[in-house]
Amino acid sequence: MTSIDTPILIINFKTYKEATGKNALKLAKTAEKASKITGVNVCVAPQYTDLAVITSRVNIPVFAQHLDPIRFGKHTGHILPESIKEAGAVGTLINHSERPLPLNSIEVVIDRAKSLDLISVLCSDTPKTAASVAYFKPDIVSVEPPELIGTGIPVSKARPEEVLETISLVRRVDASAIILCGAGITTGADADAALKLGADGVLVASGIIKAKNQEIALLDIVKAMIPRI
Amino acid sequence: MTSIDTPILIINFKTYKEATGKNALKLAKTAEKASKITGVNVCVAPQYTDLAVITSRVNIPVFAQHLDPIRFGKHTGHILPESIKEAGAVGTLINHSERPLPLNSIEVVIDRAKSLDLISVLCSDTPKTAASVAYFKPDIVSVEPPELIGTGIPVSKARPEEVLETISLVRRVDASAIILCGAGITTGADADAALKLGADGVLVASGIIKAKNQEIALLDIVKAMIPRI
Amino acid sequence: MTSIDTPILIINFKTYKEATGKNALKLAKTAEKASKITGVNVCVAPQYTDLAVITSRVNIPVFAQHLDPIRFGKHTGHILPESIKEAGAVGTLINHSERPLPLNSIEVVIDRAKSLDLISVLCSDTPKTAASVAYFKPDIVSVEPPELIGTGIPVSKARPEEVLETISLVRRVDASAIILCGAGITTGADADAALKLGADGVLVASGIIKAKNQEIALLDIVKAMIPRI
Amino acid sequence: MTSIDTPILIINFKTYKEATGKNALKLAKTAEKASKITGVNVCVAPQYTDLAVITSRVNIPVFAQHLDPIRFGKHTGHILPESIKEAGAVGTLINHSERPLPLNSIEVVIDRAKSLDLISVLCSDTPKTAASVAYFKPDIVSVEPPELIGTGIPVSKARPEEVLETISLVRRVDASAIILCGAGITTGADADAALKLGADGVLVASGIIKAKNQEIALLDIVKAMIPRI
Repeated sequence: MTSIDTPILIINFKTYKEATGKNALKLAKTAEKASKITGVNVCVAPQYTDLAVITSRVNIPVFAQHLDPIRFGKHTGHILPESIKEAGAVGTLINHSERPLPLNSIEVVIDRAKSLDLISVLCSDTPKTAASVAYFKPDIVSVEPPELIGTGIPVSKARPEEVLETISLVRRVDASAIILCGAGITTGADADAALKLGADGVLVASGIIKAKNQEIALLDIVKAMIPRI
Repeated sequence: MTSIDTPILIINFKTYKEATGKNALKLAKTAEKASKITGVNVCVAPQYTDLAVITSRVNIPVFAQHLDPIRFGKHTGHILPESIKEAGAVGTLINHSERPLPLNSIEVVIDRAKSLDLISVLCSDTPKTAASVAYFKPDIVSVEPPELIGTGIPVSKARPEEVLETISLVRRVDASAIILCGAGITTGADADAALKLGADGVLVASGIIKAKNQEIALLDIVKAMIPRI
Repeated sequence: MTSIDTPILIINFKTYKEATGKNALKLAKTAEKASKITGVNVCVAPQYTDLAVITSRVNIPVFAQHLDPIRFGKHTGHILPESIKEAGAVGTLINHSERPLPLNSIEVVIDRAKSLDLISVLCSDTPKTAASVAYFKPDIVSVEPPELIGTGIPVSKARPEEVLETISLVRRVDASAIILCGAGITTGADADAALKLGADGVLVASGIIKAKNQEIALLDIVKAMIPRI
Repeated sequence: MTSIDTPILIINFKTYKEATGKNALKLAKTAEKASKITGVNVCVAPQYTDLAVITSRVNIPVFAQHLDPIRFGKHTGHILPESIKEAGAVGTLINHSERPLPLNSIEVVIDRAKSLDLISVLCSDTPKTAASVAYFKPDIVSVEPPELIGTGIPVSKARPEEVLETISLVRRVDASAIILCGAGITTGADADAALKLGADGVLVASGIIKAKNQEIALLDIVKAMIPRI
């Protein structure tokens, strides 16, 4: 498995206009710059169509947003793990609340990712579901209460007990799990609160992408994540 | 609307190994060569991850394999019409039997494609369904009986009556519709049979992609499609 | 085909508490009473679990809310057309916006319903989609803008042009189609407006089910539907 | 929670003709008879439409085949937990491989079942998935390799190691879990093998339903399940 530096920030580009095509490349370059300045592991998860360009021009880890539980063959319109890999991605989000998978595909998808040495970031809605899927030993487990996504109400401040419960439950299943939290993270203070609760990093989307100034918003978050001695 | 030359051959790359990543670019170049030699309108429909590279390096029409009925926003892992467009695609397959859409998304997706000046290729399983969706005036209607896909049994020879019925029913709804047929098309004779039945072109996947020699298989089909005087 | 008296009112019980189990039977009996008093064709569409009891104890047409495109066999948890029939239903809603079907299942489901002499009520979100599926000659076509469902804003008053367009487009495809409209119908005046626009009936849910007094609300609507000489 | 006697046999009626409508009632009565003769806990899981009739006329535990993760409201065509309960069911299958649920619905559905005092039988395809969902403490966990379903090749004999692994993994997560296995169980010897491996019971469908004589097939299996002193 690829080793994963923590703390880690993953920026999920979703299908936001400000993170599509040329804008996606620009934001990825901003993320690269923030990573260089701070030493924090900043990763981006752009749309499939933008993967190849970004991985060829930006030197930070790039993730896909989803994989289908398929192999080479007759699967028009689906997302093949091998294609993500060949496009230069180092990993993928799995089961984001906006792209949920059937339970019986979760094991298959994580296995497919592992067999291609792709980092699997398993997203879940609740602490218990996070712990349940930790059982499959994805590289990273992330919890995001869907009702906070895009609200600007940070899970780390509005629901610290949910973050703590996730960490506690997941670590009982897999002591070495890397755990992220997300939903509503907008400021450095939000990210700092997440790390103080014990998370290894944060998953952010609109908090950076929809900011008036993406670079300022990104740096605010990343600077708060610089490990103290 | 972009004008569409006929006869037209669309090669659906699906997620075949022989049409993924570097292989996808190679096959797209072979298609470009076949188009130059014969003057036939040869198009390719590679995976999302390969769109940008192929559209920047190959000068034939490139299609996506699917679109989601979405706009910019919170849609992790989905296929945004604007992204397909920005990656250089001129159109998209819609509702392929391997990626079916709910009925209530069909109108939305075709409208989204039209608003972006993307050519819509509406796939259907049966003549009647083809006619039903012709109602939404997609640029191209394609019929492929799913049970013949990948079999090498050409719809144009095994079920000529189904091709004829499709053409007749669709033209009654939309007299100017461009109509393709597919499933099992492997040889020039199969393509020729389709055109003789009145189709404006063919949709081919494994017949070319899984051939021992893709270039020979492709040229065999395309040469049979050169318009006679 | 079973002949269908118009004007027709279909009450969709959905999964409302006030129309589940014992409440479902009570509401069905109220519907039966309203039908007897007025002579209007009042039908009910309760949940699957309530079908058998209602059809054995109430003498009005009973519909299912959905069918799956399946035959006898290995389909755990699905809705078999034959089971609906054996439970005494005379027909079924198909493709309600809360239970949409893939396009490629629509033809199959309508054919399955016809083969069992079940009345098919094809629901659609827009006038164009209504017209498109009229092509498959369902017995009844219904249009319900999803954004008005449950709002109490009646489609027949808020968007008369949408009802008119549906009727016009559908009749061009199938001159003998029976056409319903729904969404937000709450009063007799709403139903009257629908009939005056040319609809053959209405599809109602919360307008009756969530009323303080179901019988009064139902009678108000049904009385407005009594044909005038 | 309702206490659950073991060993337990659950007959999944699926949508087989031989277990639909009148046939369903007949098979349920046969199951009741077999239960009386042997003292074994024999349960049936008929279609939704047959629940009310069977629960009113047969005195053995009756299960639904599926639940949707919903509450009272606007859910046309869906399966409401409260309706299953009111129809007399004591529990439900969840996530059968023929009716898979998204991961993020599993926790919701199990919680909904528990809140209504319905026994939850969580089905899974693999030992690991069984263990993963055992985390949510469903009352019963069942493992059925989908590729053996309906084949007559019994999981308990063809893949004993898979049954053993399921039992071992699930018990590590939930020591008190009741564990079933299924797929291909056709004879008393198959059921006996399952119990000897440590399973608390079996889930059977075609092995009984498609037998030339359902009663003989059922008794053969149930007799092999009588606890020895």
